[in-house]
Amino acid sequence: MSDKIKELISKMTLEEKASLCSGFDAWHTKAIERLGIPSIMMTDGPHGVRKSNGFNLNETVPSTCFPTAACMASSWDRNLLQEVGAAIGKECQAEGVSILLGPGVNIKRTPLCGRNFEYYSEDPLLSSELAASFIKGVQSQGVGTSIKHFAANNQEYRRLVVDARVDERTLREIYLASFEKAIKEAKPWTVMAAYNKVNGEYCTQNEYLLTKILKEEWGFEGVVVSDWGAVDDRVKALEAGLDLQMPGNGGIDDKKIVEAVKSGKLSEEVLDRAVERILKIVFKAVENKKEGFTYDKEAHHELAIKVARESMVLLKNEDNILPLKAQGTIGIIGGFAKQPQYQGGGSSHLNPTKLSIPLDEILNIVGDKAKVLYAQGYDLQTGETNVNYISEAKEVAKKSDVVVIFAGLPESFDSEGLDRQHLKLPDGHNIIINEVLKENSNVVVVLMNGSAVEMPWIDKVKGIFECYLAGQGVGKAIAELLFGIANPCGKLAETFPIKLSDNPAHLNYPGEKDRVEYREGLFVGYRYYDKKEMDVLFPFGYGLSYTKFDYLDIRVDKKELDENQILKVFVRVKNSGKIAGKEIVQIYVSKKESNVMRPEKELKAFKKVYLEPGEVKEIEFTLDKRAFAYYEVDVQDWYVEEGEYNILVGKSSRDIVLSEKVYVKSLRKLPKTYTRNTILYDLKDDPKGKEIYNEIVEMIKKSFNFSSSNADDTIMMFLLQTPLRSLVSFTRGLISGEKIEMWLRELNKQ
Amino acid sequence: MSDKIKELISKMTLEEKASLCSGFDAWHTKAIERLGIPSIMMTDGPHGVRKSNGFNLNETVPSTCFPTAACMASSWDRNLLQEVGAAIGKECQAEGVSILLGPGVNIKRTPLCGRNFEYYSEDPLLSSELAASFIKGVQSQGVGTSIKHFAANNQEYRRLVVDARVDERTLREIYLASFEKAIKEAKPWTVMAAYNKVNGEYCTQNEYLLTKILKEEWGFEGVVVSDWGAVDDRVKALEAGLDLQMPGNGGIDDKKIVEAVKSGKLSEEVLDRAVERILKIVFKAVENKKEGFTYDKEAHHELAIKVARESMVLLKNEDNILPLKAQGTIGIIGGFAKQPQYQGGGSSHLNPTKLSIPLDEILNIVGDKAKVLYAQGYDLQTGETNVNYISEAKEVAKKSDVVVIFAGLPESFDSEGLDRQHLKLPDGHNIIINEVLKENSNVVVVLMNGSAVEMPWIDKVKGIFECYLAGQGVGKAIAELLFGIANPCGKLAETFPIKLSDNPAHLNYPGEKDRVEYREGLFVGYRYYDKKEMDVLFPFGYGLSYTKFDYLDIRVDKKELDENQILKVFVRVKNSGKIAGKEIVQIYVSKKESNVMRPEKELKAFKKVYLEPGEVKEIEFTLDKRAFAYYEVDVQDWYVEEGEYNILVGKSSRDIVLSEKVYVKSLRKLPKTYTRNTILYDLKDDPKGKEIYNEIVEMIKKSFNFSSSNADDTIMMFLLQTPLRSLVSFTRGLISGEKIEMWLRELNKQ
Repeated sequence: MSDKIKELISKMTLEEKASLCSGFDAWHTKAIERLGIPSIMMTDGPHGVRKSNGFNLNETVPSTCFPTAACMASSWDRNLLQEVGAAIGKECQAEGVSILLGPGVNIKRTPLCGRNFEYYSEDPLLSSELAASFIKGVQSQGVGTSIKHFAANNQEYRRLVVDARVDERTLREIYLASFEKAIKEAKPWTVMAAYNKVNGEYCTQNEYLLTKILKEEWGFEGVVVSDWGAVDDRVKALEAGLDLQMPGNGGIDDKKIVEAVKSGKLSEEVLDRAVERILKIVFKAVENKKEGFTYDKEAHHELAIKVARESMVLLKNEDNILPLKAQGTIGIIGGFAKQPQYQGGGSSHLNPTKLSIPLDEILNIVGDKAKVLYAQGYDLQTGETNVNYISEAKEVAKKSDVVVIFAGLPESFDSEGLDRQHLKLPDGHNIIINEVLKENSNVVVVLMNGSAVEMPWIDKVKGIFECYLAGQGVGKAIAELLFGIANPCGKLAETFPIKLSDNPAHLNYPGEKDRVEYREGLFVGYRYYDKKEMDVLFPFGYGLSYTKFDYLDIRVDKKELDENQILKVFVRVKNSGKIAGKEIVQIYVSKKESNVMRPEKELKAFKKVYLEPGEVKEIEFTLDKRAFAYYEVDVQDWYVEEGEYNILVGKSSRDIVLSEKVYVKSLRKLPKTYTRNTILYDLKDDPKGKEIYNEIVEMIKKSFNFSSSNADDTIMMFLLQTPLRSLVSFTRGLISGEKIEMWLRELNKQ
Repeated sequence: MSDKIKELISKMTLEEKASLCSGFDAWHTKAIERLGIPSIMMTDGPHGVRKSNGFNLNETVPSTCFPTAACMASSWDRNLLQEVGAAIGKECQAEGVSILLGPGVNIKRTPLCGRNFEYYSEDPLLSSELAASFIKGVQSQGVGTSIKHFAANNQEYRRLVVDARVDERTLREIYLASFEKAIKEAKPWTVMAAYNKVNGEYCTQNEYLLTKILKEEWGFEGVVVSDWGAVDDRVKALEAGLDLQMPGNGGIDDKKIVEAVKSGKLSEEVLDRAVERILKIVFKAVENKKEGFTYDKEAHHELAIKVARESMVLLKNEDNILPLKAQGTIGIIGGFAKQPQYQGGGSSHLNPTKLSIPLDEILNIVGDKAKVLYAQGYDLQTGETNVNYISEAKEVAKKSDVVVIFAGLPESFDSEGLDRQHLKLPDGHNIIINEVLKENSNVVVVLMNGSAVEMPWIDKVKGIFECYLAGQGVGKAIAELLFGIANPCGKLAETFPIKLSDNPAHLNYPGEKDRVEYREGLFVGYRYYDKKEMDVLFPFGYGLSYTKFDYLDIRVDKKELDENQILKVFVRVKNSGKIAGKEIVQIYVSKKESNVMRPEKELKAFKKVYLEPGEVKEIEFTLDKRAFAYYEVDVQDWYVEEGEYNILVGKSSRDIVLSEKVYVKSLRKLPKTYTRNTILYDLKDDPKGKEIYNEIVEMIKKSFNFSSSNADDTIMMFLLQTPLRSLVSFTRGLISGEKIEMWLRELNKQ
C-alpha cells in the first residue's frame, strides 16, 4: 500500500496535498475525485456512535449508549472493554463511520473536571490498559479510533486557552503514561491533539508532544488529528506533527500551507509526510468498510446492561441491608428511578436505542411479592426539592420497610465544556436523603453521577451503590444488583475525597491568567492521599461484593532480578462466601528508600477473576521494568533504581492484604559530576570518593587537632555538609585549591 | 563621613580594597593600619551574644541567653523584642562586639527545619515586624545587626548546595516579605546572604536578590555579608552585590578580585562601592563604640525571665486545672524540670550568665504549702525511658493530686545543620506521659522544644504549656505561669499540625537532586491549612489566658477607600474575667472574589494590649496599600485588585470574632493584550469588548439561525469559550479574518 500511496502523492498538486490536511466539513475528510481519494467519516464517541448532521447536538442517529468511561472503568475488566469496543465498531460499520472519536484517557486530576465521566481513571496504568482493550475492540471491526485528548487536557474551564504547566517527570509518569501503553499496544488509527497548551505551547503545535514523543519515541504511525477547532497556527501545527485539522475552515488554512511551501517557510516533505499518514488511514478505512452492515440492537442493549452491572460499585452495605429481598414494602424515592441519569452532556451525548428504567426493572423483579411505593423527591432538571416532594417522600419512607433513594447529578453537572463548582449533590437530593432518614433507617442510596461527590449523610445510610453514568442498560443493571440477581463486582477507578478541598489539585485549580500549574506533580489521586496520609471517603480500587474473598498467599518466581527480567507474582484467592462472584486483585509496587520523590505505592498490575463459592484460584501477574522504573529527567529515560521493592497485593489501595519483597538490580549508572561545590558527604557514595573522603578527614583532624569530644563531632557534622571549595579556608591552606582540582579530575575521570 | 570615606578609598591600593572585602579571621574585618582603618568584631546571635575564640562552639564568653526567636515571637510584643534587642546591644558593647549576627527571619516553611527555633514565624508580617523591633533595639545601642539568612534558607538539609525554587510572587509575598519590612523600617547595618541557592543561583552571587531587590528596590544602604563560608565565586559575588566575605580565606579570594580588576573582568567601581559600604559600617561601629561599657547582668536575667513569661503559650486548660494551687501533693516529672532545654544547637548556642531551674522555682513558690515529688522519667540526652524511670514516675503520679510533666526535644533535635526527621517527641517522653496518665488524670504537660511537635496524648491531658526554648529565665517564667503568679499571654506564631504529613511542604521536602521546589507557593502555614480546610492541632495565633476577653465591636473609619488611602480599624475589647491580662488582637484581610489565587486570609495587623479586669479598650489599627495588595508578577509590583475586602478580627487565625467589609478602589489598570486566541468570554470585561461581543453574538445567531432551544444555549456556551480566531470557520466566513484583525486593533488601541 505504501508504494501506491507514495505514487498518489507524487501525482498530487501542492494545493491538493494541503487540502487533504483539513476536513471537508465537521465530520468528513476531503475527497479528491480525480485521484480516486475518497472521503471518510468520523463521529464523536466515546461510549457509543454519535452520528449527527453538522453541529446540532440533539439530532443524532440512534445508537447503543454504553456506560460512560468512568463507569466502565470501574469494571477493571479488559475483556469487557474490548467487547464494548467491538460492539461500537460494529455500529460504526453500520453507520458508515470510519473513525470513532475516542477513547478519552485524560487523567482525573480534579474531580471537578466536567468531562471526567468520559475518562477512565486517576491512575495511568488502569486507564491505559482499559483504553488499549477498548481500542482493540473497535479496531477489530475495521474501524479506527482516536485516543484523546492528547495531552494534559484535565479541565474544561478555559480549555481552549489554558496552559497546563507540568514538570516532565509528572507528564511522563502520569499524564502521558495514560496514552503511552494504549498507543503502543493497541495502535489507534488516530490520536487527537487537545485544545489546551502544555508547557507554553498549544498541543496542536507542540512538536515535543506530537513528534518527539508520540511519533518518534512511541513509534505512532497513525494520524494526529486536531480536536475540533483546536488549531491556531496551521503551518506551525503541521511542522509540529499535526496531520489533520478538523473541522475544515473553508480552505483558509489550506491556503496558508500552500503559501508556506511556496515561500520556502515550510518544507514540502513535511506536508508529504502528513498526507501519507492521512492517506494510509483513508485507504485502510475504505478497505475495511463493510457495506450494508447491520448489528443486533437487542444484543447490544443486553451488552450495555451487562457492562453496567459489572461496573457499578457497591460502596456500603451495613447490616447486610443488600441485597434487598422482594418482600414487605419497598420505597423507591427520587426521579432518577424513573428518568435515570445515564450519560453526560456535550459531544458524547447519544440518542439511545432503548432505555432501561430502574423503577420498571425493580417492579419486574419484585412482581407481586412486595409492595413498591414511589415518590419523585426532587425536580429532575434543577435537583431542587420542596415541601410537597418532601412530604411525599417522607410518606413513602414511613410506610416502607426499606427505602432506596435514587440521587446524583443532573446533566448540567457532568458536561463537556463546564467544570463543576463543587462536589456536592444538588441540595434537594441531600435534603431528601436527610428527611427520609428521619422516617426510616433502612436506606440505600443509589448514585448516578459522572465523578466523585461528597456524601454528608454517609454515616446514616446503610447502603450505597455508585452507578456512575451507566448508559442505557442502567435500569436493569441496578435492579439486578439491588436484589442480588447479580453480585456487584466493580471497584472505584478513582478516589472519592471527603470534601473538595482535600483533592490534590485544590491549591492549583483552575489556575490563573490561563496557566494552571500541576504543582501536586506525581501526587495525583491515591498517590496524593497516601503520601498525605489523608482519610478519604472511598479509596481508589475499593468496592464491595455480596460474597467474601480471602487472599491466601503471595509468591514471586524470584527474589532478586535485574531490571530487564520479568518478575512473576502469584496470588491465591479464595471465594469463601456462599455465592459466586468476581474479585479485582490489585498489585502495587512501592520503594521505601529512594533518591527521588516517589508515591507511597503505585498500581502496576491487576486482574479480575471469577470464583465459584469455595473456589481457589492462583492468579499470575507479570511485572516488567516499567513496574519498577521512574522517569529520570536527567537521562530522559525510564530508570530503575537498584534496591528493594515491595510487591503489595491489595483489595483496594487502602487495603493491602499480602506483600513480598524483591531486590531489583539496575544495569545502568546515572551520570554524576563532581564539582568544587560537591559536599563531602556526597563523596562517600563511590569507592574513589570514599578514598578521598578518608584522606580529607585525616587532614582535617590534623588541622583541627581533634580530640574525641562532642564539639569535634559537631565540627565533623558541619564539615560533612561542606563543599570541597571550602576546605582551603577551613584547613587554613593545608588542603590547597590545586589538591581539590586534582581530586575532582580523578573523581570525574571514572 | 561620606567624603572622608571617598577620600580614604582614593588612597587605597587595589590590593587593600580587595583585602577589606573579606574577614581577617572568623569574627573580624581587616584593619589597614597605614590608613587608620580599624577592624571590627562581629559575633553570632541571635538571642544573645556568642563571643568565642575561633570556631570552637563550646568556649564562649558568658552572656544572657534570652528566649530563642521561636519563643519570643509568641509574645507578639514589639516593645519586648525591642527591649531584648537593646539589652543584647548593651552586652555587645560590653564585649566590644560591633555587629550581632541576627535576627533570623526565615519563614517556617516546614516544622522539620532544624533551625526554626532561631526564626520567628510562618507569617511574614509578624516575622518582619518583630525583627524590626529587635533590630531597632540592638542598633539603639550603637551596635549593628545582620538580618539573616537572605533568602529562602528554609531547611538545614544540604543547605550549602540546595537550590530553593520559588515562584516570584511567593518569594515576594512570603519569603522576602519577612525581610522587607524589617530592612526598610529598621535599617539593619548588614544583611547576611544565605548558603543556599535561590532559583538556580547561590544567594551570595544572586544579583537579583542582592542588588536588584535588596539594594535598589528596598534601598538598603548597609553591607551584604556572606554567611560563613557561603561564597563560591568571589568575583561573581562581588558583582552581584556581596560586599563582605566571611570568614576570610587567607587572601585567596582577595587575589581573585585583584586579578579580575587588573584583567578588566571586574570594574573597579564595583569594588569601590563595596569598600565604601564596608567602611561606612566600620566607622559607624567605631564611632558608636563605648569603651569600658558594662551591663547589669541581674537586670538582663530578669528581662530574660520576663520575656519568657510573656512568650510561653497556654495551649490547653481543661477543667481549669491551671493555674495550679500550692496545696496537696504536686508531682513533677521529667528531667527537663531540673535541666531545662532552653536553647538550641549550633552557632546560636550560648554560655548563659545564670540559669533559672523550673523545679527550684516551683519549690520556691510552693514553699511548705504543698508537698512536691519529683521523678526524672527519661534520659536527658537520648530521651529514652526504662522500667525504673517509669515505675518511679508512676509512683509519683499515684501519690500526687496533680502532675506536671516536663517534656520536649533534646538539643540534638533543635539544631543548626540538622533537620528533624519527624515531629514526634522522643518515645520515652510519650511513654512517660501515657504511663503517668494511667495513674493520674490531672496531668499538665510543659513542653520545651524549638518547633511544632505531635501530641498523641493531647485528648488525655488537661493542661499544656508550650515554653519553646525559653532562654535562661525559663524556670521562673514557667513556675510563675503554672501557679498563676503571672497570667499567660503568648500566642503561637506558627501552626501546630496534627501530623507531619499534614504540613504544606510535605510533598516537596527536602527536595531531590539538591533542588527543593516550593510548590505549595503562597500556601505556607495557616494559609495552607485554611485553604485546605484541614484540622490542626493548634492554629496560628492561638493561645489561652487565665482571664477572658470579649470582643465588643469593630469599626472602620471609611467603608470605601482608594488604594493609597489608609484605613483605620477600631476594635473594642473587654477583659471580662477576674484578673488582669494581655490579649493579642489579630487583624486579617481576606478577599473572596479574585482573579488570582489568594490565601483565605492573611495577617495584616496585630496589637498586644494589657487590660485590667472589667477594662475596655479601643484598639486602633491602620491598614495601608500593602494590606490589600498582592505582588503582580506581570507588572513587577504590588497591585491592589479593586473590590470588596473583609476585615477580620481574630483571637486566633481560626477564631474570627468580628468582621467588617470595605471597598478598595484600584488606581491602576493591569495591561491587557487581546489576541486572536482571546476567547469571547474575555471580551465582556471592557466596554469596547462588550460592544464587539454583542456584534459577534448577533452574527453568530444569524449564522446558526438560532431559535431559543436548549441546543442553542449549549452552542452559545461553547462559543463563549471559543477564541476569536475560530469565528471564521464557526460562522463559515460570515466573520472574516480581516474583521477580527480590525477588532483586535480597536481592542488593543484602548
